[in-house]
Amino acid sequence: MCELLGMSANVPTDICFSFSGLMKRGGDTSHHKDGWGIAFYEGAGCRTFHDPEPSATSKIAQLICNYSIKSKTVISHIRKATHGQVNLVNTHPFVREMWGRNWAFAHNGKLPGIRKRKLEHFHPVGDTDSEHAFCWMLDQIRNHFAKPPRGRKALARLIQDLADDVARSGGTFNMLLSDSHVLFAYNTTKLSYLTRRAPFGQAQLVDDDMAIDFCTETNATDIVTVIATTPLTDNETWAPLKHNTLYVFHNGLIVKY
Amino acid sequence: MCELLGMSANVPTDICFSFSGLMKRGGDTSHHKDGWGIAFYEGAGCRTFHDPEPSATSKIAQLICNYSIKSKTVISHIRKATHGQVNLVNTHPFVREMWGRNWAFAHNGKLPGIRKRKLEHFHPVGDTDSEHAFCWMLDQIRNHFAKPPRGRKALARLIQDLADDVARSGGTFNMLLSDSHVLFAYNTTKLSYLTRRAPFGQAQLVDDDMAIDFCTETNATDIVTVIATTPLTDNETWAPLKHNTLYVFHNGLIVKY
Repeated sequence: MCELLGMSANVPTDICFSFSGLMKRGGDTSHHKDGWGIAFYEGAGCRTFHDPEPSATSKIAQLICNYSIKSKTVISHIRKATHGQVNLVNTHPFVREMWGRNWAFAHNGKLPGIRKRKLEHFHPVGDTDSEHAFCWMLDQIRNHFAKPPRGRKALARLIQDLADDVARSGGTFNMLLSDSHVLFAYNTTKLSYLTRRAPFGQAQLVDDDMAIDFCTETNATDIVTVIATTPLTDNETWAPLKHNTLYVFHNGLIVKY
Repeated sequence: MCELLGMSANVPTDICFSFSGLMKRGGDTSHHKDGWGIAFYEGAGCRTFHDPEPSATSKIAQLICNYSIKSKTVISHIRKATHGQVNLVNTHPFVREMWGRNWAFAHNGKLPGIRKRKLEHFHPVGDTDSEHAFCWMLDQIRNHFAKPPRGRKALARLIQDLADDVARSGGTFNMLLSDSHVLFAYNTTKLSYLTRRAPFGQAQLVDDDMAIDFCTETNATDIVTVIATTPLTDNETWAPLKHNTLYVFHNGLIVKY
């Protein structure tokens, strides 16, 4: 299995602290050593880093821990290979352009049988079930909406239906997805989240002897939500996301439809 | 205007030396300070780095100079903005998936009027004429070939025709393109190349006080071709690419059809 990390914030925020915790799980405190990747949205732009090396020892991962890349939406993934070889082409997040937007996707779980689903517009480059599921979802979205629908509700409803469809076919479907405007999260087994806002306090990583005082790092109006497979800190209250429910995060908050 | 750098090799090779020369031109020895990017193919996988910062001072560019990422096909670009804002979304190389392959593209020049061309499958995320030209070419290729054609000749002929078509509409079209199998190069004004093979010698960068002895870095069977807007070394013989002619590089050599 793999681990996911996502972030949604109302101001460009660096993810160095959370990413430092996650990368430890890539071959140090845990066994997710078969590559890692991260996508940072900066406006409509999407800056990605992928590495088939274990994140715990990757020089590129070290750069990301130390170099403050600020973003309002981030998707990251560390991999424990189950389907597909350990190589660059199978590292998440996968990215595709649709409607002139960068879509990024990362998945945790197995999806037996997903590769039988026919694809039309988007095709996997690698051989993971995850990338096939992503391409299938984009195909369906594109077939429903040749152009972006007005308002976000129609798109969210469709993505909920598609995620349910994938989940119903068996397997485990914990995923993070973004169209650069919002962050979608869906899980059948395991995803938790935490929203940090004023008054900010201290946070202590589970996986490293590292603490941060967010008071000194933030402004009073900042809102930052972090989503992870399992909690990354041990002195804050993480809430599990309801199973089989699509969450839409925008500017650090859950959007209700 | 901008500068291009490409590499085709018969064994995975690092581009640290050439990239060190190019990055100096991004705000130090030259004025191409409006961002930079690089795409490394590793098999079918494509690892990209993009940064709107000047390459001469970018920490990510420094990592790439120092950290040996080995690849058989590389496309890199440093930007002097003419069309479009200075931001991440407008940094080359642009990447799209078609036929389950990663296509990467970088362009030097202006293409007035290109944005009037209608697009169907692929759409720009940013607002450069370059990304529009890339999307238009991919649209045409996809409309001609729903699946990859057998043999490479048909594809090369089509890309020659499309590049001629873009060039005929006015402006400057110096570009590097890859479908992960081969590297295509086309220029209307300026691109040079150099093939290094045994017996290897020393090379001295134009833009930095840096030399390398390739004898100690290579095997006797290595073949590495570097393509650049202007020569990167001053003690080797670079050859200009003929204008309006599509070159196809594979395993470091020019493929003749």
